[in-house]
Amino acid sequence: MTGPSFALLATDGVARRGRLATAHGTVETPAFMPVGTAATVKALTPAMVAATGAQMVLANTYHLMLRPSAERIARLGGLHRFMGWDGPILTDSGGFQVMSLASLRTINETGVQFRSHVDGARYELTPERAMEIQYLLDADVTMVLDECVAHPAEPDAVAEAMRRSLRWAARCREAFRARPGYHLFGIVQGGIDPALRAESAAGLRAIGFDGYAVGGLAVGVGQAAMFDVLDVTAPLLPAAQPRYLMGVGKPDDLVGAVARGIDLFDCVIPTRSGRTGQAFSREGALNLRNACHAEDPRPLDESIPCPASRDFSRAYLHHLVRTNEILGAMLLSWHNVAYYQQLMADMRAAIEAGRFDAFCDDFNRRRSGDDQ
Amino acid sequence: MTGPSFALLATDGVARRGRLATAHGTVETPAFMPVGTAATVKALTPAMVAATGAQMVLANTYHLMLRPSAERIARLGGLHRFMGWDGPILTDSGGFQVMSLASLRTINETGVQFRSHVDGARYELTPERAMEIQYLLDADVTMVLDECVAHPAEPDAVAEAMRRSLRWAARCREAFRARPGYHLFGIVQGGIDPALRAESAAGLRAIGFDGYAVGGLAVGVGQAAMFDVLDVTAPLLPAAQPRYLMGVGKPDDLVGAVARGIDLFDCVIPTRSGRTGQAFSREGALNLRNACHAEDPRPLDESIPCPASRDFSRAYLHHLVRTNEILGAMLLSWHNVAYYQQLMADMRAAIEAGRFDAFCDDFNRRRSGDDQ
Repeated sequence: MTGPSFALLATDGVARRGRLATAHGTVETPAFMPVGTAATVKALTPAMVAATGAQMVLANTYHLMLRPSAERIARLGGLHRFMGWDGPILTDSGGFQVMSLASLRTINETGVQFRSHVDGARYELTPERAMEIQYLLDADVTMVLDECVAHPAEPDAVAEAMRRSLRWAARCREAFRARPGYHLFGIVQGGIDPALRAESAAGLRAIGFDGYAVGGLAVGVGQAAMFDVLDVTAPLLPAAQPRYLMGVGKPDDLVGAVARGIDLFDCVIPTRSGRTGQAFSREGALNLRNACHAEDPRPLDESIPCPASRDFSRAYLHHLVRTNEILGAMLLSWHNVAYYQQLMADMRAAIEAGRFDAFCDDFNRRRSGDDQ
Repeated sequence: MTGPSFALLATDGVARRGRLATAHGTVETPAFMPVGTAATVKALTPAMVAATGAQMVLANTYHLMLRPSAERIARLGGLHRFMGWDGPILTDSGGFQVMSLASLRTINETGVQFRSHVDGARYELTPERAMEIQYLLDADVTMVLDECVAHPAEPDAVAEAMRRSLRWAARCREAFRARPGYHLFGIVQGGIDPALRAESAAGLRAIGFDGYAVGGLAVGVGQAAMFDVLDVTAPLLPAAQPRYLMGVGKPDDLVGAVARGIDLFDCVIPTRSGRTGQAFSREGALNLRNACHAEDPRPLDESIPCPASRDFSRAYLHHLVRTNEILGAMLLSWHNVAYYQQLMADMRAAIEAGRFDAFCDDFNRRRSGDDQ
């Protein structure tokens, strides 16, 4: 690869329009990555994912180390071949899932020991092992292993976890095998304390990464506090490198975060919501289970170039949801991912045109309220 | 529409190569119809179904009359538009599902009264109502309402149900609204008694239908007895009209039935098996849950022109099945339907070429045993 991996193509206020180059292709930012936890974006084929315009997907180190194991995926030619996704893949390090899913966790300076939530088997994840796993998976973007504390937490616990995460980040940087097109991102932690966030950002910059994520904001913090953290954290990150807000969020979270200088997102919401009958729309979220959709011949959104958005009536989707048909989960997941991709494309176009403020006004005005 | 609705293009022994014309397109026979019980072929989009080469699908009157109701589907423009399937659709009459799914059934000469297995609501299905529902659905092929008895049954009960089904068939013929491209099929009943089958076939021929189904062989009869019934029944049906073996079956059932003069099939096996980790192959059935597939890089069958058959390793499919991912059900259902379509295409080509016997020999020789 020649040139820098991230090109900042345009800015509009704090919002950024960029392009991330990886070993498996480029990603236009701001970008949303559909989540392929266990090497599948749930209820979608890779071709369906690609048809939405998604360029990069996320997969989970924690889930894949348990099943089928990183070593098996490596023997089968890496994660891209395994899951049939030719484009870029970002893998998280497993730190967050260990805290939220695994049992009998013990954390020390070495790393984290835990038992699988699937079969109780013992595992250890260290910074070095997290790098090895993501190398075996052949991730285009590797995330450092961090210690995640649930919000809210005692200030001392937040500070201690953030500082341990910094020490782990340095070990990750050391263990990461640098190759062209393969990137290692650090993760800013520190809860909702601006001073801790600043300390984390400075520590990570001192180590030096190819990109910087903001962690710890996906669960329990709330949008207002999340935006406050982004307001103070984003300016502390290098302008020339991509910024990734982990695990966020709903459409209005994405718009607000792009307005605060974020380039990259992932979240299970579009696919998880699709499996429970919810569809995102420009007018807000729709619950297709509701009887008001039973005879509605309109598609979800004719302006979105996805068969799930254009070719099926809300009445049909209502029927599929009510009868618990798998096709309901498929079509709503597909539409939701396509909706998210359209939203990102619209934001990219607005930033390029220097009219991102107007885009945000229009976005907020059209959302007449969720049908929940 | 001009000309007869069914053209017999070639024969090879008893096996037949034909073409059925309907209001929504033609169907090359022998043909297999994927089952779209509740207006969806489970775990497949209509485009995925079409990509397998399937030309016609089946939907169930019983399920659709309960949810979302034939009247609602009619208001939404008919079943084709509702489910996004532009090709021919055959609807069964509901008789079989009432017997296997509904509760508190009472059958008399008028029809059958029952309660929905979904919510206990009361319904009545008469020959006239079965014709009305299928008219509202806009089925290309409508099936007569018949009384189905579970096998084995007392000879008197089989005879009585068959004769009542004949009387109902005459009422269906009377109530059916004949239009170009829309067909009404009778259903031969009579259990495994050749004399009763002959009486049923003669009675139906006297009424006169656009095609003739053989019913009562899908559950509990077994392949040998089924083939015996076909051996005596098929010769009693008009050569110039299509013959449909209802609810059958496994690949070797289809090959044996085509060899006995059957033109049309439907069965839930390819999709149901796909949802439980089973894949059909030329070498027999594979259970993808088995550990022997865990590191197998081979696709299911590169010779089948379906992404599910060619683009994913057995190791990946094993992983998806083991982790209960929806994509596993999607890909295995897709492959299985594609396998069935390939099987039918191969049989059509063999009949055209006058080498159907050789095809059957090869088919049986390659099946080295199921991996079950």
